[in-house]
Amino acid sequence: MNIETIKWYKGGVRLIDQTKLPLRLEYLHCRNIRSLWLAIKRLKVRGAPALGIAAGLGVVLGLQRSKAKTFSRLERDLSRVIDYLASSRPTAVNLFWGLDRMRNTAQANKHRPVAEIKRLLRQEAEKILNEDKAVCRTMGRQGAKLVKDGDRVLTICNAGALATADFGTALGVFYRAKEEGKRFKVFACETRPLLQGARLTTWELMHSGIDVTLICDNMAASLMSRGMVDKVFVGADRIAANGDTANKIGTYNLAVLCHYHHIPFYVVAPVSTFDFRIKSGRQIPIEQRLPDEVRMFCGRRSAPPRVDVYNPAFDVTPHKLITAIITESGINLQNDSNL
Amino acid sequence: MNIETIKWYKGGVRLIDQTKLPLRLEYLHCRNIRSLWLAIKRLKVRGAPALGIAAGLGVVLGLQRSKAKTFSRLERDLSRVIDYLASSRPTAVNLFWGLDRMRNTAQANKHRPVAEIKRLLRQEAEKILNEDKAVCRTMGRQGAKLVKDGDRVLTICNAGALATADFGTALGVFYRAKEEGKRFKVFACETRPLLQGARLTTWELMHSGIDVTLICDNMAASLMSRGMVDKVFVGADRIAANGDTANKIGTYNLAVLCHYHHIPFYVVAPVSTFDFRIKSGRQIPIEQRLPDEVRMFCGRRSAPPRVDVYNPAFDVTPHKLITAIITESGINLQNDSNL
Repeated sequence: MNIETIKWYKGGVRLIDQTKLPLRLEYLHCRNIRSLWLAIKRLKVRGAPALGIAAGLGVVLGLQRSKAKTFSRLERDLSRVIDYLASSRPTAVNLFWGLDRMRNTAQANKHRPVAEIKRLLRQEAEKILNEDKAVCRTMGRQGAKLVKDGDRVLTICNAGALATADFGTALGVFYRAKEEGKRFKVFACETRPLLQGARLTTWELMHSGIDVTLICDNMAASLMSRGMVDKVFVGADRIAANGDTANKIGTYNLAVLCHYHHIPFYVVAPVSTFDFRIKSGRQIPIEQRLPDEVRMFCGRRSAPPRVDVYNPAFDVTPHKLITAIITESGINLQNDSNL
Repeated sequence: MNIETIKWYKGGVRLIDQTKLPLRLEYLHCRNIRSLWLAIKRLKVRGAPALGIAAGLGVVLGLQRSKAKTFSRLERDLSRVIDYLASSRPTAVNLFWGLDRMRNTAQANKHRPVAEIKRLLRQEAEKILNEDKAVCRTMGRQGAKLVKDGDRVLTICNAGALATADFGTALGVFYRAKEEGKRFKVFACETRPLLQGARLTTWELMHSGIDVTLICDNMAASLMSRGMVDKVFVGADRIAANGDTANKIGTYNLAVLCHYHHIPFYVVAPVSTFDFRIKSGRQIPIEQRLPDEVRMFCGRRSAPPRVDVYNPAFDVTPHKLITAIITESGINLQNDSNL
């Protein structure tokens, strides 16, 4: 893997501008907090783990110009930076998780000198990033045990290097399987409405020399009925205590298809994705996104301007349709009736 | 209904230019066979029944300038017109069916004067069109029995007025239900890759005052799991002797989802859609379409230019997943276990 989605670089945050993919690989070097805020807002960087990293690095960037000499002044500046970054994507859980970690680090060290606190904050941000790298590689190693030579696997959205520091969750499984010398074929669902599968997953798999075939979301059933899919691997946005999993819209559709066709359905996500305050998927609210995402693409109108639209950001897959959840702690069987 | 998809008008064939929808309602007046050929080729007119009608009217148009005085000369001109029209969309079964009807009409009347044969051909073309109108209305009346006040129904692709002379198959059921004063809500799947649902179905339902909501294809499962869909109605391209049905890609996906969620799944198609030479869906070949349909979205590139693509034009739904097939002869129960 040589995709570096986001990192600290020459006194700023350097990230791959994902809105330019797959046509151009362009890096954006954010030297101030405003440009990072815009990058998050405009989805130039996206993916739950990558947003957690952006939060950490963003706080470091935002405090660079702070002239605070006392903790109370630093705390004021820190709050301003955190509130500002939080406003970029108010529904991104991992962004808040990253910002909380930074706030807690500052609080836990409030009696140290300001320069020392700033150094510890920088350390914490790097730690978030390095933890992500380590966790993704461990998940990849666990998940790769499930990939056999000759497998045809299918995925949706982008649970890859571009959604994390550099390796991915569901796609990390494929990267690891390739490192182990396994040959396999990946089908990538394009993932309407924002086409993260078509734009990002195909790009990073091709970039890494993995055999990938793009399909429209409505073609997965046809592939399965013809015996062309052996396993499905997806990421997760949030997992309830009972294993019910929220992920990009279309994931539940694939889970039902796997159930019908007796195909194993695997969720790959770090332990941090579990939200044990939530008992089951029923309690996860369904966020509705803007209608024009469905009515338009890249500025082209493909439907009547005023047609009603239903555009949920994600759906919930009940645990009984999930064969196993793969985390850094291992392969956790949920329901093996598809096997 | 006041949508006139295709008709004979002032010495030519007038059709709605469907590539301009939903942004503009424009009519194209084809005064020579070349312009009709282009209209078919470029999908300005599409939909199985509409292509059968285009074939009939096209033959009349093509023979208008024939100077034949004998049957053998007329036959030569007729063959040239038929071969030319057949080359516009070589895989469209209904186009050939329409052309065959015209050829048979000429042959059956070969001993009559040329002017008389031309008149009979014109009559046959009008007959194809009027039969379509009558059959669609009968199907609509049959299917509307299944729509209850308050229903939320879902459909894919465009099995509507724009695919027929003026009323539609699956959508004809909704038009009739509206005429009967029933209130109901339609969800239209956008139908990637060519977006006939987003572009055409939404437009004609809105045009007819029917409550329609657009969704991406991967959102149907989410709707069903939330109890927001009562019935699914789809059209058909070809039906095997055992009831297995080929239709636009994504149809089989919906059938599996209906089975899982215990939602009735209805196919609406004229008897002429049955191909009794074909015993089961396994014998229906799956046509692969151009990769750029999937790599691009409304003319904009949305995936790496050289990524592999799987792009089947349609899928096959086995009869055991179909609740009933609705034809002009009635409601033919297939498998009522979803009811």
